[in-house]
Amino acid sequence: MNGAESLVRTLIESGVDTCFTNPGTSEMHFVAALDHVPGMRSVLALFEGVATGAADGYYRMARKPACTLLHLGPGLANGLANLHNAKKAGSGVVNIIGEHAASHIELDAPLTSDIEGIARPMSHWVHSSTSAADVSVDGARAVQAARTPPGQIASLILPSDTAWTEGGAVAAPLPVPERTGFDDAALAEAVAALSGPDSLLLLGGAALSVENLEMAGRIVEKTGCGLLSEWSNARLERGAGRVFVGKVPYPIDQALEVLGRYRRIVLVGARAPIGFFAYPGKPAVLTRPDAQIVALADAGADLGGALAALADGLQARATAPGGIAMRQQVALPSGAITAKSIAAVLARTIPENAIVVDESVTTGRAFLPATAGSAPHTWLNNCGGSIGYGLPVAIGAAIARPERKVLAMIGDGSAMYTLQALWSMAREGLDVTTVILSNRSYAILRGELTNVGVQNPGPRAVDMLSLDRPALDWVAMARGMGVEGCRVEDAAALEKAMIAGLDAEGPYLIEAVM
Amino acid sequence: MNGAESLVRTLIESGVDTCFTNPGTSEMHFVAALDHVPGMRSVLALFEGVATGAADGYYRMARKPACTLLHLGPGLANGLANLHNAKKAGSGVVNIIGEHAASHIELDAPLTSDIEGIARPMSHWVHSSTSAADVSVDGARAVQAARTPPGQIASLILPSDTAWTEGGAVAAPLPVPERTGFDDAALAEAVAALSGPDSLLLLGGAALSVENLEMAGRIVEKTGCGLLSEWSNARLERGAGRVFVGKVPYPIDQALEVLGRYRRIVLVGARAPIGFFAYPGKPAVLTRPDAQIVALADAGADLGGALAALADGLQARATAPGGIAMRQQVALPSGAITAKSIAAVLARTIPENAIVVDESVTTGRAFLPATAGSAPHTWLNNCGGSIGYGLPVAIGAAIARPERKVLAMIGDGSAMYTLQALWSMAREGLDVTTVILSNRSYAILRGELTNVGVQNPGPRAVDMLSLDRPALDWVAMARGMGVEGCRVEDAAALEKAMIAGLDAEGPYLIEAVM
Repeated sequence: MNGAESLVRTLIESGVDTCFTNPGTSEMHFVAALDHVPGMRSVLALFEGVATGAADGYYRMARKPACTLLHLGPGLANGLANLHNAKKAGSGVVNIIGEHAASHIELDAPLTSDIEGIARPMSHWVHSSTSAADVSVDGARAVQAARTPPGQIASLILPSDTAWTEGGAVAAPLPVPERTGFDDAALAEAVAALSGPDSLLLLGGAALSVENLEMAGRIVEKTGCGLLSEWSNARLERGAGRVFVGKVPYPIDQALEVLGRYRRIVLVGARAPIGFFAYPGKPAVLTRPDAQIVALADAGADLGGALAALADGLQARATAPGGIAMRQQVALPSGAITAKSIAAVLARTIPENAIVVDESVTTGRAFLPATAGSAPHTWLNNCGGSIGYGLPVAIGAAIARPERKVLAMIGDGSAMYTLQALWSMAREGLDVTTVILSNRSYAILRGELTNVGVQNPGPRAVDMLSLDRPALDWVAMARGMGVEGCRVEDAAALEKAMIAGLDAEGPYLIEAVM
Repeated sequence: MNGAESLVRTLIESGVDTCFTNPGTSEMHFVAALDHVPGMRSVLALFEGVATGAADGYYRMARKPACTLLHLGPGLANGLANLHNAKKAGSGVVNIIGEHAASHIELDAPLTSDIEGIARPMSHWVHSSTSAADVSVDGARAVQAARTPPGQIASLILPSDTAWTEGGAVAAPLPVPERTGFDDAALAEAVAALSGPDSLLLLGGAALSVENLEMAGRIVEKTGCGLLSEWSNARLERGAGRVFVGKVPYPIDQALEVLGRYRRIVLVGARAPIGFFAYPGKPAVLTRPDAQIVALADAGADLGGALAALADGLQARATAPGGIAMRQQVALPSGAITAKSIAAVLARTIPENAIVVDESVTTGRAFLPATAGSAPHTWLNNCGGSIGYGLPVAIGAAIARPERKVLAMIGDGSAMYTLQALWSMAREGLDVTTVILSNRSYAILRGELTNVGVQNPGPRAVDMLSLDRPALDWVAMARGMGVEGCRVEDAAALEKAMIAGLDAEGPYLIEAVM
């Protein structure tokens, strides 16, 4: 058995059964092994950012890593931005990155680059294999690294001679690392802190599961504290019958206003809130200067245990959870497509148990409050701020959970970064309905010009943030990649299209012209 | 004046008058400065790989650098693959990369990453500005670094507080570094080496200009030596009336056969030939083990001086150049679109003084011999091997040379990596005719499976190299980005479409179905 085959078999033994690929010559032995070893689903992407973003979405919904297959330094480079997002989301990903044979690297061939150097900024774990005999053990270590809670980026570099040389042997899976304990010493302080509306329980990561939110709801009901999640969440369970949790707002002034209400803040799976960007004359730390911040448990800790201990300390275990969202009937909006009417249509149409991938940027700020009482669903956000995450993450979510509908709400500017994802959706017949929020601009930047102190931007600056010259025709682009779609220009048509898209099998795209 | 404005003014003073942008919040002050400072053309790209690739093409044709404007680490990451190609092509690029304010970096915000670490593998020069007062001097240094022959990648990181703080002052341009001397000590050896058909003059980089090729032609005529260029050339001047130079073939077996003829090789602007990849059981060094290799001048040296000195040593200065391509009449091909018929159509239709951007991969191997006697033109190749270079490079070439027609011959697999380039072509009304070579596969990898020793690839491996499920509709995708186009399925229709596309103003796309 050659090294490549030993690696594929080891990955499968270690529970990695999905590979998002964009291979090249140096990966051909791995491709050949994928061909004849059963047990690994291979999903081809036409751009590496689609592969890495799909691995992110897969981890969020499967709760185990997929692998990617990338072509040397430049292939990895094309996948870095979505690895950045995955890293910030706490998603585990195993990257297999092809490399020249060891003897070839020193010759400085055209595709030679410093792959370890490229991998390091976006990886928790980087390793280059040195022999066919070691490859499988390296692979098992990569999976273990990727599964370290909450999830890590592991990048394994595979020189082609380690792949093609005989002498590989399947390695045994390594134990999956457990979540660390929460901060016992901080528990009493946390218990004392949560009391009344000037105290806040701030949740992140796995604290946003149905069960953990229910425990948080008991604490809220008992103490009267506030409840929020971070500005962006890798995976949030929500909808009617579940404890509703809001978000720290993205716009700096709103965030300062909301967080200014709280004098005591307990963090469970969350970090202390800071500004997304620095703004001249505004603070970077969003909480009150005099706020007491108690870090009870970080993202890799046992968050269920932390919340249960907190509830015990507050004698809230028997309290019925507060803040449970009630099923809401939202009226059918009419007229133009606006942020508000999209939110209403979304509230009415989210299917039971759907996965909503949200890269709606400016348009989507109204979505969360409006959909609090919709059918129960899962909500995925971009945690790293690098746009182009949404369409790829929808692929990974759909592959991890084929029985669930995926609804991707994506700004037009964001969708353009990784539009190649539509082809992979068509190829794999994935049940993803994409709504392109077509405002023909980088709308968020127009707001940010003012926030960073640029007054009265001139026409050339505004033009640089505009996508209307020429207008993008998303239905044509989708059809070009094998995805059917339609364009809608009023709210009623949007609802009709969303229902049709969600009812049908396979991918569908709706361009919602705002 | 704030730091951003001082930087924009300094770049313009230093001769940088074109900026390929994809900005975000941290770059808004730079955008505002672009707005009110005259003299910098700003070209918006919807993906950063388009911006960096355009800067590569611009340098090749303008012989001076453009700048890019990129959004923090992930924005730079998206541009890395085409920076890799630019680096290997010897193109100079000035990257301006936004960064958080210094005080914000330590807070580890969502978009925080190790920008210097991301930049370093693909840059010759990396620097982070530390104050508004320093930004302009840093900018002048970046331009100087980018203009170091043959051209370098300079990455200047601009923390947002250095951009928005007052206290900037325009910096004076720094001297443009001159080309280094060639290797005088090697000259006598080079003169002695070139004699008869078992000796080779191997050219690269600026040695492929019209004048330098003419000098090489004199040497060939006088000595009977062979003449070749590297497997890939950043810019090659060719066509009827110019000295024809072939390339070292890409396929390893052909390269070994061709180079096996030569016992003595003189390098002028070229590196000693090595394999693109390592292949099991085949040599990495493509020349004969006993070949004498004389490195007369590297890519950054005075190549015109080296060739003139060589000609003097060989008493060839007065010899009429040999190997001048004669104007050829090629017959109109009929029937299906094949590599051969495309080559014939190309030979017939290349407009006088056109720029051909070649990312034709497998299909294009017949193009160079077929077009030797076409109207004089410039030919650009991918030097780094990371596909997705062609459409962006065509943008940069068209902006650098608006008076010339640009013809981009791009494989379908390659074009998908950076198809967002089509939108920027439409927006800027660029005179680029794109021919998509639609063979619906990563055809090169099918050949490479055999080369790396994978016999009888199974259906899953072949499927992973196929783009036919679903088929890509390039005309629809182009129209979706504002570029008109057509699909052709026979050679005569291809010629008609190419003539129409080249005659019209603005971009046009032809899907050539093979």
